[in-house]
Amino acid sequence: MEFNLNEDQLAFQNAARKFAEKELFPYASEWDAEKKFPKEAIVKAGELGFCGVYTSEEAGGLGLSRLDAAIIFEELAAACPSTTAYITIHNMVSWMVDEFGTDEIRKKLCPDLASGKLLGSYCLTEPDSGSDAAGLKTTAVKKGNKYSINGTKAFISGAGESDILIVMARTGESGTKGISAFVVHADTPGISFGEKEKKLGWNTQPTRFVFLDHVEVEEKYLLGTLGEGFKIALKGLDGGRINIGTCSVGAAQGAINQAQRYMHERQQFGKSLAQFQSLQFKIADMVTELVAARQMVQLAAFKLDGKDPNATTYCAMAKRLATDMSFNICNEALQILGGYGCTQDFPVERLMRDARVHQVVEGTNEIMKLVISRKILEEGATLQIR
Amino acid sequence: MEFNLNEDQLAFQNAARKFAEKELFPYASEWDAEKKFPKEAIVKAGELGFCGVYTSEEAGGLGLSRLDAAIIFEELAAACPSTTAYITIHNMVSWMVDEFGTDEIRKKLCPDLASGKLLGSYCLTEPDSGSDAAGLKTTAVKKGNKYSINGTKAFISGAGESDILIVMARTGESGTKGISAFVVHADTPGISFGEKEKKLGWNTQPTRFVFLDHVEVEEKYLLGTLGEGFKIALKGLDGGRINIGTCSVGAAQGAINQAQRYMHERQQFGKSLAQFQSLQFKIADMVTELVAARQMVQLAAFKLDGKDPNATTYCAMAKRLATDMSFNICNEALQILGGYGCTQDFPVERLMRDARVHQVVEGTNEIMKLVISRKILEEGATLQIR
Amino acid sequence: MEFNLNEDQLAFQNAARKFAEKELFPYASEWDAEKKFPKEAIVKAGELGFCGVYTSEEAGGLGLSRLDAAIIFEELAAACPSTTAYITIHNMVSWMVDEFGTDEIRKKLCPDLASGKLLGSYCLTEPDSGSDAAGLKTTAVKKGNKYSINGTKAFISGAGESDILIVMARTGESGTKGISAFVVHADTPGISFGEKEKKLGWNTQPTRFVFLDHVEVEEKYLLGTLGEGFKIALKGLDGGRINIGTCSVGAAQGAINQAQRYMHERQQFGKSLAQFQSLQFKIADMVTELVAARQMVQLAAFKLDGKDPNATTYCAMAKRLATDMSFNICNEALQILGGYGCTQDFPVERLMRDARVHQVVEGTNEIMKLVISRKILEEGATLQIR
Amino acid sequence: MEFNLNEDQLAFQNAARKFAEKELFPYASEWDAEKKFPKEAIVKAGELGFCGVYTSEEAGGLGLSRLDAAIIFEELAAACPSTTAYITIHNMVSWMVDEFGTDEIRKKLCPDLASGKLLGSYCLTEPDSGSDAAGLKTTAVKKGNKYSINGTKAFISGAGESDILIVMARTGESGTKGISAFVVHADTPGISFGEKEKKLGWNTQPTRFVFLDHVEVEEKYLLGTLGEGFKIALKGLDGGRINIGTCSVGAAQGAINQAQRYMHERQQFGKSLAQFQSLQFKIADMVTELVAARQMVQLAAFKLDGKDPNATTYCAMAKRLATDMSFNICNEALQILGGYGCTQDFPVERLMRDARVHQVVEGTNEIMKLVISRKILEEGATLQIR
Repeated sequence: MEFNLNEDQLAFQNAARKFAEKELFPYASEWDAEKKFPKEAIVKAGELGFCGVYTSEEAGGLGLSRLDAAIIFEELAAACPSTTAYITIHNMVSWMVDEFGTDEIRKKLCPDLASGKLLGSYCLTEPDSGSDAAGLKTTAVKKGNKYSINGTKAFISGAGESDILIVMARTGESGTKGISAFVVHADTPGISFGEKEKKLGWNTQPTRFVFLDHVEVEEKYLLGTLGEGFKIALKGLDGGRINIGTCSVGAAQGAINQAQRYMHERQQFGKSLAQFQSLQFKIADMVTELVAARQMVQLAAFKLDGKDPNATTYCAMAKRLATDMSFNICNEALQILGGYGCTQDFPVERLMRDARVHQVVEGTNEIMKLVISRKILEEGATLQIR
Repeated sequence: MEFNLNEDQLAFQNAARKFAEKELFPYASEWDAEKKFPKEAIVKAGELGFCGVYTSEEAGGLGLSRLDAAIIFEELAAACPSTTAYITIHNMVSWMVDEFGTDEIRKKLCPDLASGKLLGSYCLTEPDSGSDAAGLKTTAVKKGNKYSINGTKAFISGAGESDILIVMARTGESGTKGISAFVVHADTPGISFGEKEKKLGWNTQPTRFVFLDHVEVEEKYLLGTLGEGFKIALKGLDGGRINIGTCSVGAAQGAINQAQRYMHERQQFGKSLAQFQSLQFKIADMVTELVAARQMVQLAAFKLDGKDPNATTYCAMAKRLATDMSFNICNEALQILGGYGCTQDFPVERLMRDARVHQVVEGTNEIMKLVISRKILEEGATLQIR
Repeated sequence: MEFNLNEDQLAFQNAARKFAEKELFPYASEWDAEKKFPKEAIVKAGELGFCGVYTSEEAGGLGLSRLDAAIIFEELAAACPSTTAYITIHNMVSWMVDEFGTDEIRKKLCPDLASGKLLGSYCLTEPDSGSDAAGLKTTAVKKGNKYSINGTKAFISGAGESDILIVMARTGESGTKGISAFVVHADTPGISFGEKEKKLGWNTQPTRFVFLDHVEVEEKYLLGTLGEGFKIALKGLDGGRINIGTCSVGAAQGAINQAQRYMHERQQFGKSLAQFQSLQFKIADMVTELVAARQMVQLAAFKLDGKDPNATTYCAMAKRLATDMSFNICNEALQILGGYGCTQDFPVERLMRDARVHQVVEGTNEIMKLVISRKILEEGATLQIR
Repeated sequence: MEFNLNEDQLAFQNAARKFAEKELFPYASEWDAEKKFPKEAIVKAGELGFCGVYTSEEAGGLGLSRLDAAIIFEELAAACPSTTAYITIHNMVSWMVDEFGTDEIRKKLCPDLASGKLLGSYCLTEPDSGSDAAGLKTTAVKKGNKYSINGTKAFISGAGESDILIVMARTGESGTKGISAFVVHADTPGISFGEKEKKLGWNTQPTRFVFLDHVEVEEKYLLGTLGEGFKIALKGLDGGRINIGTCSVGAAQGAINQAQRYMHERQQFGKSLAQFQSLQFKIADMVTELVAARQMVQLAAFKLDGKDPNATTYCAMAKRLATDMSFNICNEALQILGGYGCTQDFPVERLMRDARVHQVVEGTNEIMKLVISRKILEEGATLQIR
């Protein structure tokens, strides 16, 4: 076992931290308040390779592992979880096209996706199918060598700003096996977007409904084979859950950094807050949970990288634990800041709102428990989950 | 013992609920989103007596008990905790003038305060004295028959919109005994206001710094006697803590109502959410905590009404428990609504944000624990706290 | 509303406390360690009326309300929750015979039950039907004017020591409607007892299997009418849950008393534990939860006394909350005592073990959540649960 | 990074598991019930090297790392945390003699300690100095080439059964610098033992007071140099905390194994418990916490092995989190087993009682928070604790 980062990882971590401190943190609160999508900052992140971290080098990405990606994304998220979460979704899109796209499409799109010149959105959720993703109703019907897609997608991150959509649609029977995945240009005729959702958090990324009305897509834009869409979605989910967990760990680290500083600066009753035992114990617990959450995320990423047969279970555990602990940590940091914690003069309440979103997206934490328990309740499973 | 509401209380409760459903709930989310102070709605509440619930009848109020007030305010808060919290602060101002003001001032101000024609703000907190209220630095120096007040007040609810300020200022030695309370017209020369704070919650009430620069106040505007200000503040705090606890109970009830409805409407995996055992258990716990929180608030109000020697302890316990449980309940309600819970299409995230503020204001919950433990750790005290 | 005890209640409380301090507390740890059933102490409790608190006066009981009973039992439980829990089970038996027994049986048994000369046990649970009480398999088949009972009962408190058993048995169809309740003398031929269970807590009351092999019972020993057994059981359960909640509140009070004293006595790092802020905050939370738990239990008792249509829901909420909070309180008290808390030189670990049992008995807390949610998820129900 | 066990570790794990299943698990409940110290089983463990896991090979130990030790001890603890905890204390004694003993003493004692032929106890705590270890009052006064030790040690694991004591005593000034460590034969004149403590858990290891009355020890039995005792104690504590964390992880794994099996076997309402969603979610959370706790312990062991400057902080975090989560897991497992969980027919209540002890020993979890916060509240520290 080896729990330390290697030199490459330390270098990526350092680069990501510097980028985040310079290009994200100084603006994040303003982006949040004004609900601004920071396209330029994302393009800058792309210049460092952060828009295609695990896209293959051949396709223009960094070709790194999920574990490496977790180390990078955590640093970005400590400054702005919302923008980072969008970047991770974009990374998933970039990776999916690389992994499952036809050669023609890969060559055409991946370099621009990996460098952030093209931005992607992932269209799985529908108004009536959230947790029950396989219940989706959007259809793709073949006509000649094209598919005609009809349906409505909900809560789509980046919608209205992004260039490329991956759309999950039903091409066959009901259930998981009748679903296929398509790459769709966002400006294809028939696509329109709903109003920007007003949200608790994730305010630097627009979220909109996507309406698909007889949207025609050529056959070569199919990802994988026909009917393979849900399998692709599930593969994406494992990584997506690590990413959300990572964004949560970053948010928690950001909140702790604020709380720690405030405890030294703020004086009450003639002492700094750092001298009050109840607050000392509180921040000790916060950091302990942070380290535990980070370990779980890195463990899951390692298992996914190694194609461990239990990787899906580890990803679900990491997402559940890291998002819950992170919200708790941010929330306690807010409490340490007291009245000031409720103001937007400090980033803590923003980190807390973003962290709150994470308990719900990429499968609610209830869905995580379903996924985990299904495995655990196979006979003998607890001995394998280590 | 008698745990049921009497007929008068049921009538007040019903009136308040109807008012809240008609005049607050339909607009509250908009007020929150647009950070609008709903002065008109507050005036309407005043017409029903809700701006002077425990102001004496003689002074134009309803002359009710704190327990009655808790029943009324809870109903308002189920619709809009933020507006209701302001109304309770106003009620405190109205009561303080009635209870401690000179006859001249009482006659002049109370009827308009109790009817909501004049609105009040309470100016205790300063930038450097939050939890340590007695460390305040604003001074009031006597010159002739006037006091000249200088200092800065922070996080003042209603500031910039209200007409009457109660200002705590130092007229003597450092510590609790050198503080006096003054009634000040908000348009007195020398008063200016900071920018509206940008906040996590309580967005329907403006919060600002109040700058006092040689503000002159006649002697008759002194509340109580010279040096009695902190004692008055403490008396106000007991009631204020019940009020914040009440607003929390209301928020929790509002969130549960939403969650309950959503569980019946939302279908996933071919069943309504109401059919999933994990969610059934979750809402069972939420309602159990709601009932417990409400009991604690009503118990504390009863103890305060009866001038129980332990009333301060009960008020602190009620504030601590009700605000913590309420935030938890609202937060769980949000989780039940999943992705929709994070949008402002449903009031749950608003209720959660408002409830979060309550854990920090009117004494942080850490201060509550200090207050409680001080009593508990007197020898033999646990047997008295029942 | 009125939250204070009246004079009679204060008198009963005082009498119970004195009895507990004199007759229970000094011996409870020894009874626990030696797994001794303190029959003599129970008989002494009977002399004060505590074996028939809500048995009618006509039948030899005190004829008090459930609320009064909660006040009395809490005091006993602060000294010995295990013994008190048995006494409350006996009270239920005493009350059931009084409420549902034929005149002949009532006259014959109630005076001795109410005075503790006869002790009772309640035989509902079976090895395979715990939470699913209605799945019981013990049968009672009529032969002439007698019933012949066959089956096995599990976890029966007092079994092997008590004189009178109330046995639930199937006289008809499967499900709830085919169950009847019988009063059975413990020395009836065909009755035998299993070994004394070795348990985590409740060690002052023996728990055994009861084997019924062609046990003949005369018709007049039927409680209520044929097939009414489950209805009777449910009525018993409401009160039983208040009783278990009460025993938990008592345990928590007992543990807090110990922790409070220890915090003053124990010195570490040159200060008493009472001077450490983290422990101050801990005991503040413990007492706050204690008061909340007590309120919930008293509210439920009040609702049951008043035959409130939602009484069952309140009883389930009280049992869930009070037993969970109480265990938590006892557990934190143990932590305050540190290494000493793990020894049997202090009663805290005993109180904790007894409190732990309460989360499981009289319907596990999971069953409570089922009961509560069933009500909550009726449309509009949350507004009725207040 | 590498999260998988290597082949050697898998082999040790397997050997430990087999030993535990064969030599510990079948007897552990009986040892617990009868408060029996299983000397023979410990000697058998010694034959496999488990009494000197990180004692150097030269001194007769296995010479393994702390991480390897955690893997081994966890397997033993899944069967019997109490016995395993004693074995880990013995390992610490064995290691201390090897690491700090004079050559003569090392040669004389280590082979027998490492093989379990001699058993050790660690005597730091005193009746009045628990958390405040440096406040110890036992003295060692030099007379000629001997030290005469006087004082009382409390809560000494193995006392009365073990052969070798490491005794911390004051040889100089008050505070940490005046303490020295001595190896003392348990049969030295002047040593006597108190009664066996009656305890909540850890019932397979005797705990006694040790009275030292003019106990003479030759100079060569000094560990390290004069005044180095507290430093040695602190070094021991880091490893001791990993060990207690490990014992907790093992207990949790043991409890989960039981709960998982029971959920499949137990039928209620016509379904196995494994089919109830609330219990599925519960066990999912339990396993998630188990994995997190294990990660933290292994991380801390890795940091200690690598002499990371923050190792002490990681050890404290691991102890805090693993012992808290483990107790919670065992407690939830008990709840899953319902009434049966409270009986000693299943090992769950035993595992829970043992796990409860761990939150108090080797520094209470409050002391852990002190240790952690001291580090965190150094400027910039949060970025180093990763």
